[in-house]
Amino acid sequence: MKHVLLLNGPNLNMLGRRQPEIYGAETLADIVARCTLRASDLGFTLEARQSNYEGELVTWIQDAREKADAIIINPGAYSHTSVAILDALSMFEGRVMEVHLSNIHKREAFRHHSYVSARADAVIAGCGAEGYELALLRLATLLG
Amino acid sequence: MKHVLLLNGPNLNMLGRRQPEIYGAETLADIVARCTLRASDLGFTLEARQSNYEGELVTWIQDAREKADAIIINPGAYSHTSVAILDALSMFEGRVMEVHLSNIHKREAFRHHSYVSARADAVIAGCGAEGYELALLRLATLLG
Amino acid sequence: MKHVLLLNGPNLNMLGRRQPEIYGAETLADIVARCTLRASDLGFTLEARQSNYEGELVTWIQDAREKADAIIINPGAYSHTSVAILDALSMFEGRVMEVHLSNIHKREAFRHHSYVSARADAVIAGCGAEGYELALLRLATLLG
Amino acid sequence: MKHVLLLNGPNLNMLGRRQPEIYGAETLADIVARCTLRASDLGFTLEARQSNYEGELVTWIQDAREKADAIIINPGAYSHTSVAILDALSMFEGRVMEVHLSNIHKREAFRHHSYVSARADAVIAGCGAEGYELALLRLATLLG
Amino acid sequence: MKHVLLLNGPNLNMLGRRQPEIYGAETLADIVARCTLRASDLGFTLEARQSNYEGELVTWIQDAREKADAIIINPGAYSHTSVAILDALSMFEGRVMEVHLSNIHKREAFRHHSYVSARADAVIAGCGAEGYELALLRLATLLG
Amino acid sequence: MKHVLLLNGPNLNMLGRRQPEIYGAETLADIVARCTLRASDLGFTLEARQSNYEGELVTWIQDAREKADAIIINPGAYSHTSVAILDALSMFEGRVMEVHLSNIHKREAFRHHSYVSARADAVIAGCGAEGYELALLRLATLLG
Amino acid sequence: MKHVLLLNGPNLNMLGRRQPEIYGAETLADIVARCTLRASDLGFTLEARQSNYEGELVTWIQDAREKADAIIINPGAYSHTSVAILDALSMFEGRVMEVHLSNIHKREAFRHHSYVSARADAVIAGCGAEGYELALLRLATLLG
Amino acid sequence: MKHVLLLNGPNLNMLGRRQPEIYGAETLADIVARCTLRASDLGFTLEARQSNYEGELVTWIQDAREKADAIIINPGAYSHTSVAILDALSMFEGRVMEVHLSNIHKREAFRHHSYVSARADAVIAGCGAEGYELALLRLATLLG
Amino acid sequence: MKHVLLLNGPNLNMLGRRQPEIYGAETLADIVARCTLRASDLGFTLEARQSNYEGELVTWIQDAREKADAIIINPGAYSHTSVAILDALSMFEGRVMEVHLSNIHKREAFRHHSYVSARADAVIAGCGAEGYELALLRLATLLG
Amino acid sequence: MKHVLLLNGPNLNMLGRRQPEIYGAETLADIVARCTLRASDLGFTLEARQSNYEGELVTWIQDAREKADAIIINPGAYSHTSVAILDALSMFEGRVMEVHLSNIHKREAFRHHSYVSARADAVIAGCGAEGYELALLRLATLLG
Amino acid sequence: MKHVLLLNGPNLNMLGRRQPEIYGAETLADIVARCTLRASDLGFTLEARQSNYEGELVTWIQDAREKADAIIINPGAYSHTSVAILDALSMFEGRVMEVHLSNIHKREAFRHHSYVSARADAVIAGCGAEGYELALLRLATLLG
Amino acid sequence: MKHVLLLNGPNLNMLGRRQPEIYGAETLADIVARCTLRASDLGFTLEARQSNYEGELVTWIQDAREKADAIIINPGAYSHTSVAILDALSMFEGRVMEVHLSNIHKREAFRHHSYVSARADAVIAGCGAEGYELALLRLATLLG
Repeated sequence: MKHVLLLNGPNLNMLGRRQPEIYGAETLADIVARCTLRASDLGFTLEARQSNYEGELVTWIQDAREKADAIIINPGAYSHTSVAILDALSMFEGRVMEVHLSNIHKREAFRHHSYVSARADAVIAGCGAEGYELALLRLATLLG
Repeated sequence: MKHVLLLNGPNLNMLGRRQPEIYGAETLADIVARCTLRASDLGFTLEARQSNYEGELVTWIQDAREKADAIIINPGAYSHTSVAILDALSMFEGRVMEVHLSNIHKREAFRHHSYVSARADAVIAGCGAEGYELALLRLATLLG
Repeated sequence: MKHVLLLNGPNLNMLGRRQPEIYGAETLADIVARCTLRASDLGFTLEARQSNYEGELVTWIQDAREKADAIIINPGAYSHTSVAILDALSMFEGRVMEVHLSNIHKREAFRHHSYVSARADAVIAGCGAEGYELALLRLATLLG
Repeated sequence: MKHVLLLNGPNLNMLGRRQPEIYGAETLADIVARCTLRASDLGFTLEARQSNYEGELVTWIQDAREKADAIIINPGAYSHTSVAILDALSMFEGRVMEVHLSNIHKREAFRHHSYVSARADAVIAGCGAEGYELALLRLATLLG
Repeated sequence: MKHVLLLNGPNLNMLGRRQPEIYGAETLADIVARCTLRASDLGFTLEARQSNYEGELVTWIQDAREKADAIIINPGAYSHTSVAILDALSMFEGRVMEVHLSNIHKREAFRHHSYVSARADAVIAGCGAEGYELALLRLATLLG
Repeated sequence: MKHVLLLNGPNLNMLGRRQPEIYGAETLADIVARCTLRASDLGFTLEARQSNYEGELVTWIQDAREKADAIIINPGAYSHTSVAILDALSMFEGRVMEVHLSNIHKREAFRHHSYVSARADAVIAGCGAEGYELALLRLATLLG
Repeated sequence: MKHVLLLNGPNLNMLGRRQPEIYGAETLADIVARCTLRASDLGFTLEARQSNYEGELVTWIQDAREKADAIIINPGAYSHTSVAILDALSMFEGRVMEVHLSNIHKREAFRHHSYVSARADAVIAGCGAEGYELALLRLATLLG
Repeated sequence: MKHVLLLNGPNLNMLGRRQPEIYGAETLADIVARCTLRASDLGFTLEARQSNYEGELVTWIQDAREKADAIIINPGAYSHTSVAILDALSMFEGRVMEVHLSNIHKREAFRHHSYVSARADAVIAGCGAEGYELALLRLATLLG
Repeated sequence: MKHVLLLNGPNLNMLGRRQPEIYGAETLADIVARCTLRASDLGFTLEARQSNYEGELVTWIQDAREKADAIIINPGAYSHTSVAILDALSMFEGRVMEVHLSNIHKREAFRHHSYVSARADAVIAGCGAEGYELALLRLATLLG
Repeated sequence: MKHVLLLNGPNLNMLGRRQPEIYGAETLADIVARCTLRASDLGFTLEARQSNYEGELVTWIQDAREKADAIIINPGAYSHTSVAILDALSMFEGRVMEVHLSNIHKREAFRHHSYVSARADAVIAGCGAEGYELALLRLATLLG
Repeated sequence: MKHVLLLNGPNLNMLGRRQPEIYGAETLADIVARCTLRASDLGFTLEARQSNYEGELVTWIQDAREKADAIIINPGAYSHTSVAILDALSMFEGRVMEVHLSNIHKREAFRHHSYVSARADAVIAGCGAEGYELALLRLATLLG
Repeated sequence: MKHVLLLNGPNLNMLGRRQPEIYGAETLADIVARCTLRASDLGFTLEARQSNYEGELVTWIQDAREKADAIIINPGAYSHTSVAILDALSMFEGRVMEVHLSNIHKREAFRHHSYVSARADAVIAGCGAEGYELALLRLATLLG
């Protein structure tokens, strides 16, 4: 059975608690629950983690090398500033799916560039929390 | 029943005929057939068109205003150079999903910017032809 | 009797059909009718054409060399991206008036530069459809 | 009766006294006289002022808030360097028409950007002194 | 009674221990003590925290949403590199005062830009540790 | 008794007369009155001047060399364009406090840079008219 | 027998009809005739096409995949703006010779960059119409 | 007898009154006196003026058209920011010598560019007040 | 006896566990062991630490102020993004040697710039793990 | 009889001695021999020189003014860095053909710009050593 | 007696032999003769050298350390490209006068920057060959 | 026995003769002597050369192809400006060690980029003359 690590970066622990009219009323826990179900349907085990610390995200990605077949990552603000996460992902040999809740290309110019995209197999932006599930579907094809 | 327009830009008519080891053996016709089935499953009608002409793509987008509830567009090379397509999409009031077969952020720098992204609701890049289907799934949520 | 070619670029065929509160309720046909009258008052014949195709606009400008004394052109989105239209206009020996309905300098940065301006005798931006008539008035002086 | 303030920036007091083959033989006084007549025909009163001082132009624009319904301004060289004039115009609530005698987009690169354009309702460039009259005509529509 | 969170970023725990001729002999503890008194005079409770970790600062800002009416933040080096802190502050609904001990605009070019300034209500730079007190005074007006 | 020169640049004479919902209802005269009182409390004499002329501001700064112990300056639009004011301030040997009513870093990009900041001892932005008083408080410490 | 496709982009149909003192008196038909003879001498068949439409050029390049051993292309203005033509050429497996009549590096800065050069085997600029024949000679070596 | 206008821009009235160890103990009056003598030796009449106002400098340059055979100008800080002075000088038909006391290329980057240099016949920088005399000597050759 | 702190940044804990054909089979522990021996030979005590956390590295550098005579640091990805580490090092009064395993100037452009280099006494890049030993040798000279 | 100078810049003396699979097995001597024959066929005398010294190339170009009717130059690396060679060529009154063995536009970005192109009549890149012969053929037309 | 080294860079040996209508009919020998006389009048010995080789100019500047009190240098094209000459001049402890015959700020953009200016005490541009004499005059003051 | 070529670029022949407080009292001859001993200890023969001529350095690097196993090069100022040296090194098949006496990243911005680094196996900067010996040590490992 394939194992998927679902990583969320800084401030994504606040989902559902701010601007629900924009980001929806679902909390990160709700989303993880929904993704776990979906993963299970697709024959995956899913482990979800969130951190506001760049270093902790790096560590978890390193640890995934021995455990996970794929990483779905929403690096949040670290997309735009973290070479360390890019480097950690570059050492990971499985699939990497980059997800952004909003379409970052419609926001401030400094959000248009993601270091992570240089490593990601795919980028899904602007599909809200459903983007995680679309990433899982894509992984079903890639890892199937 | 919701209607979706699937637009493909320049050179996408060549799918399956070049570098199948990279882009897969499916032709655009194969992909359209698969998308039509998927759309049908989701309760959509789908109309697919491809053009190498920026002007023709603009015209089809204009025409979609009276016919389609959503546009899925892979603008190909025009992503990076066409303000006219952006303007046509800006007049369209339904949903716009931007799809790229490859992860354009891993390619030459001039492919990192897409004018269309400034209007698209979502961008899906690097999922191959399956990206069109993921876009349909997202539309099922948005238009459902 | 002097002959004027009035050229409109991509998406300008949609005038009056979108955002009438901004662009007014006049369709392109209405505007052409009004310009034709005004041209006639000024002693000009007027021929109006619109295309979403860069190549068609280039061809019409080429053809104008033998027929028209002046071109009034609203290149729309091609203002910002078309060297081909600039080159075609550079071969035209009559007067060239560039018109934009909106003040492009108040919009996104990529709309601040127009290739056509490098050839135009004058640029009129932000006067709405009346801009075409002001261009005709200026031509009356220049060609008078 | 609507009141229009016609402002001219630095060096425009020299019109008619330099390079008449380019700028015409009309002096600024001639132009103002012609504009006054035209304004009168359109039902406007016109007050014309010229200054080489950025600060004086700022002050006149401030004073116009209580007196004028529209400003026609040719900021001359200050177009490219004055944020102060932009700020003064931003406080003015009437219409603002920006006029340049020459097509500034055909000149040195530093003349392609005008701070004033960020506030102006319309920009007319390259129509010579007739540009002021075209601005008056546009104002007749806007204020009529 | 209004509650204020006083946050200090990386290396500010070293105050008073380095270059006292420049930064003064006061330690961060001294400064916090002085600010607590001043806050009390103004009718505020004050909680002060310092971290060298971007992630910890993000977490504290998130936590402040339920506890604080205002944040005074000296992001130190993270001013120039942290989008995550900007995002956390953007979720905070109270007032945000950005303080820098030195005038960052007189230092290296990379210190001239602060991501935090895009969210801060005010920026006070170059007033030394007194800048925190000036921020408190401003908050007294804003929250009074 | 220490003497402070309070200088305001272009358009600041309009305070209270425009957008009171943003800038408050206080006129510049009101603000000066308030600052004079505050200065007096702090043991300063205060002289306030405002000009729309860059040259006049330069002259007043030069004159301050023999009269004032400190300058509080809100250069308005000249912050972004005047090297002459920077040079005049560089000759002044007392303290220089730069004040902006709004947080200029949240506005258009061309307002993010202030030539004056290269000379100012401190910069206070976004505290409204209260910023002048905060500057006086800081001067009380510096000149005390 | 090797087959060569000779493609000319926008405005090159005007050769001989404008500025003969610069571009020579030869029309495109004359040039094609001369090239056909030269090709024949070298043992090639030659097919020549010209279009003002980017999309048509793309289509012809796609079609060449099954017919031609080499393409000689003068992309005209599309050199500088067309990623679509670059992409079409990238799919073509034969030789690609890029020809410009003038030395584009002596003209405006925006003409110094050609997207097509990223794919072309060789670039010949500034040899006038003879450049096409030099390209044929080079092909004789490459395909011989 | 040839007439020379010696213009000095903002802050140059402070010469001799600041940093005499750098700029020398000579006041502007001393320098003018020395230049007047030198001019007289060379057969010139000399008129010297200084202003902190850009507009006044523009006006004096305009007036020089009827009176002076050459202008020696040290535009001070306006070198770097004034298009208006450039334009005024462009209308002047005599010789223009640009002088800077210091070598501006060794100072901050924004001082490396002078708008005036685009019009000046010659630029002399870093020769202190003697630079004015060298300019006079050069004029003796040019106007001799 | 001199004390040296050997700091390694993010992902360097993975040495020997990834791409051994490139980075060698030595783990970080192996390298530290080898450096400890070498340090001992040179008369140094060596303490080695690695962290994926920017904040932890900052803290260790601060702590080194009272303990170490020199720091050898391989900041890994934080070289390119961390002003906080630069600031912490700037407070450290001993020697700072910056080491990179690979020649960062041959990699992606964003790796060419290191904030740390602005403080480092020396930079050694591309010598693999031996770089740490070369740094120790240099320290032997500097601290000897 | 027309005389042609064939100049080769730095490292071109190594032709045939490095990477023969890319650059061919021909040495520079072989190429010169072939070009001499071809020149002779075309009625030219040919003199060939190579130098690794910028100054020597400059000197030879200066000397050519009295001897040669045309220069064929492959400036090698000096294409991208030598203004001195550009200046020397600008003094030469005959034809200048610039040749590059490889298509420099497909290589590193710093090789895309050639100072020499600003003076060259034509540029031939990517035709290998045959490029010199194509240049001779073009000269036959130009000098014929 | 003070000794002055007069250095001329690439192509300046061609003076008088090209475009005499622009650069004058004087050869470099004529100019040197004139400067030698002038130097003698001022009490200097003068040694003049010209080279097309950057390395030779560097060597002569190094040698000047023991022989000359000042260097007058016209680096020609090397102004814009030579860090080596800058470095050599930086080691020279006497005065350095930089001379350009033409006003380089009116020429192509790449000629506006001179590495040498970062070291020169003064820059004289646009005074033709007389510039060397003005430099001598300035040296008379500085070395007198 | 392995052979190493030690190359020094412009101005490095001046070592020990300028600013000994910065660069040390050792002359280049001293350093070469020390390196020769060290090389001998490591089992290398060493040949040292210095030139101020870019062309001579290029030639020596070319010659090294048949003689040396490694090159240690301090390109001095040519680091920043010489593509020719980069190209010559790219043809060399042995090891290349780049050495700078000072940490070039702490100096002017134009010294931060070295063309040579794109080819060097390693870069050692800021270790003074000892950097050459560290390079030899590294070579002992690489060539051992």
